[in-house]
Amino acid sequence: MTTASAPVVVIAPDSFKGSLSAEQVAEAIGEGVLAAAPDAVIRLCPIADGGEGTLDALLHAGGEVHRLQVRGAAGTVREAATGILSDRSAVIESAEIVGLTDTTGTAVAVEDRSTLGIGDALLALLDSGARRFLIALGGSSTNDGGIGMLVALGLKLLDAEGKQLDPVPAQLDKLARVDVSGLDPRLKDIHIVAMSDVDNPLCGDHGATAIFGPQKGVKPEQVKPLDALLGHFATLFEQASGRSEANSPGAGAAGGLGYALLMLGAEFQSGAQTVADYIGLDAALKDADWLITGEGRSDVQTLHGKAPFIAAQRARLAGVQTSLLSGGIDRTSLPQLQTSFSGCFSIVFGPTTLNDAIGNAAALLKDSAEQMTRLWLSGRDKS
Amino acid sequence: MTTASAPVVVIAPDSFKGSLSAEQVAEAIGEGVLAAAPDAVIRLCPIADGGEGTLDALLHAGGEVHRLQVRGAAGTVREAATGILSDRSAVIESAEIVGLTDTTGTAVAVEDRSTLGIGDALLALLDSGARRFLIALGGSSTNDGGIGMLVALGLKLLDAEGKQLDPVPAQLDKLARVDVSGLDPRLKDIHIVAMSDVDNPLCGDHGATAIFGPQKGVKPEQVKPLDALLGHFATLFEQASGRSEANSPGAGAAGGLGYALLMLGAEFQSGAQTVADYIGLDAALKDADWLITGEGRSDVQTLHGKAPFIAAQRARLAGVQTSLLSGGIDRTSLPQLQTSFSGCFSIVFGPTTLNDAIGNAAALLKDSAEQMTRLWLSGRDKS
Repeated sequence: MTTASAPVVVIAPDSFKGSLSAEQVAEAIGEGVLAAAPDAVIRLCPIADGGEGTLDALLHAGGEVHRLQVRGAAGTVREAATGILSDRSAVIESAEIVGLTDTTGTAVAVEDRSTLGIGDALLALLDSGARRFLIALGGSSTNDGGIGMLVALGLKLLDAEGKQLDPVPAQLDKLARVDVSGLDPRLKDIHIVAMSDVDNPLCGDHGATAIFGPQKGVKPEQVKPLDALLGHFATLFEQASGRSEANSPGAGAAGGLGYALLMLGAEFQSGAQTVADYIGLDAALKDADWLITGEGRSDVQTLHGKAPFIAAQRARLAGVQTSLLSGGIDRTSLPQLQTSFSGCFSIVFGPTTLNDAIGNAAALLKDSAEQMTRLWLSGRDKS
Repeated sequence: MTTASAPVVVIAPDSFKGSLSAEQVAEAIGEGVLAAAPDAVIRLCPIADGGEGTLDALLHAGGEVHRLQVRGAAGTVREAATGILSDRSAVIESAEIVGLTDTTGTAVAVEDRSTLGIGDALLALLDSGARRFLIALGGSSTNDGGIGMLVALGLKLLDAEGKQLDPVPAQLDKLARVDVSGLDPRLKDIHIVAMSDVDNPLCGDHGATAIFGPQKGVKPEQVKPLDALLGHFATLFEQASGRSEANSPGAGAAGGLGYALLMLGAEFQSGAQTVADYIGLDAALKDADWLITGEGRSDVQTLHGKAPFIAAQRARLAGVQTSLLSGGIDRTSLPQLQTSFSGCFSIVFGPTTLNDAIGNAAALLKDSAEQMTRLWLSGRDKS
């Protein structure tokens, strides 16, 4: 039995959606680790994958919140947080502006929702001097092909009589022409990173409407007509602009907001990778002994670019083993999850309800992390 | 990072009551450990604490089942398993004969239940040559002061007219005299070990009826009269025998069956300690790297002589750390449990129902043990 030195533990969880922010999760896990190993060196690195919580995770690493008045998915003006990071990059989180959890937005039908607010935020941040943007695409309730954002930035959607249309999919059947001449000229000088792991095209069987529409409320019989309307817009927009992106990977992200951003020259990056880079996860993992990550619920999808998977990949490169602590683990996914995680655990201590687990998430996280650390240390002591 | 040698893991769980035997629990955990550490040396040592499952645990270490026809708590003849161990000791498990889970027995009121069947088993085993007995007292549905067993062995309960009474508490109000002359003479030459962690006296505020009666169906208003009847029997029995045990620790075990056994000269031993000795737990722990124990549900009571606690004590003496894997863990008991266990885990992987956990217990145990082993190994690799 050797005497091990004080362990260095990196704690890099995603948020527990609907319960705790990634920062709160990380803090709770940290408390548990320290309860079991008071001498441990704890490095809190809350992460995100380009969805809800991405702004928080980026700001945790350094930056300032900018609260803006923007239009939500239903057009109602609301306050939304954006951020300016230490390197002057501006952050816009789609979920914060046109989020699927915003019931004011989802109170109107999906064909009447718009990304106008994303454009509002971009303009305001342009006005305050931002020229580099990180836009997190996950968690939107919209399926408008990004027409809302584009119209807010100066695009005109015109009918056969030259009358301007509202930028919602329900109006696109009247679309006769797209006028790009009024687009804000500053857009030529900016750099946009779109954070998304989606590589779907704008339209078709693998397009935004067919794949992501249903979870936003698109009814089965609406899929084809809505998809056709977005295709109609793209055809006219591409004629007007001389650029073509409808089939590019990522065009189908965030209900086609990805397409609109690609048309503005955006570069697509994995949300989790971008966040991992920004928060300095690799530096935190240097000389670390253990990484604990987690999320609200883990299954095979976790391995498709979700934040805990990216964190585990980074850890592996640094020679650090990773354990997973989530609200729940899909047990049938363990064979896959085990290829990335040394131990997959749930926060619960026995049969219980989802509401109980959500209501006590912070305490359960602390206690579970303490138990995991005790076990981990006992293996460590034994070697 | 050092290369650790193949780990030696001792797996010594109690049964998951109402779900899996201790042997089944141990096998499931063993499968999980081997899935994570195919080179591990696994030592399966299912344990018990003197209640249900004690016979199984003792037989797992070596011995033969003897099936006997005996009377249940309601007097109905039934088949019950007893055992003869390698050292020729006979094992009688009260829970197997007059168990609280036997609905035929509990169909009659507690004042009409009898331990006759314990006496039946003793006699049959005496007939087959047994002279050393291990009697597991936990899990009985009876509260008869052991009169059933004693009558089966030849004691006579007589009313004022010298008529024999049935050996049930409801008859004791007519008891005028106890005749010990007919007790089987072979009882003088036997050694009885009563396995129990109960140190209550037969009667009074801390007696069998007051403390354990309610869980067997004794109504609040019945406690005093029933307690008085057992006291009345003890007074007459002790006058007739010249021995006094009503206030001895353990007399209140198994509804006063402990008292009757003490009157026959029984020695009381902790159930879990006796089982641990019989199954050779200390030898299994020699040179071991890790002990995994568990039970259906763990709370502060676990630390009061329950099998997982005794296993952890033995492990500590052997320099081996112990982790707990139970169906459920009372989270408020973690501060106490942690003093004995390096990591306390539940078998569930997220919010779920008790029925689901019970129905999938074996698979959940395997998967949980695999996750624990992966975490334990990752600590081990890191040291």
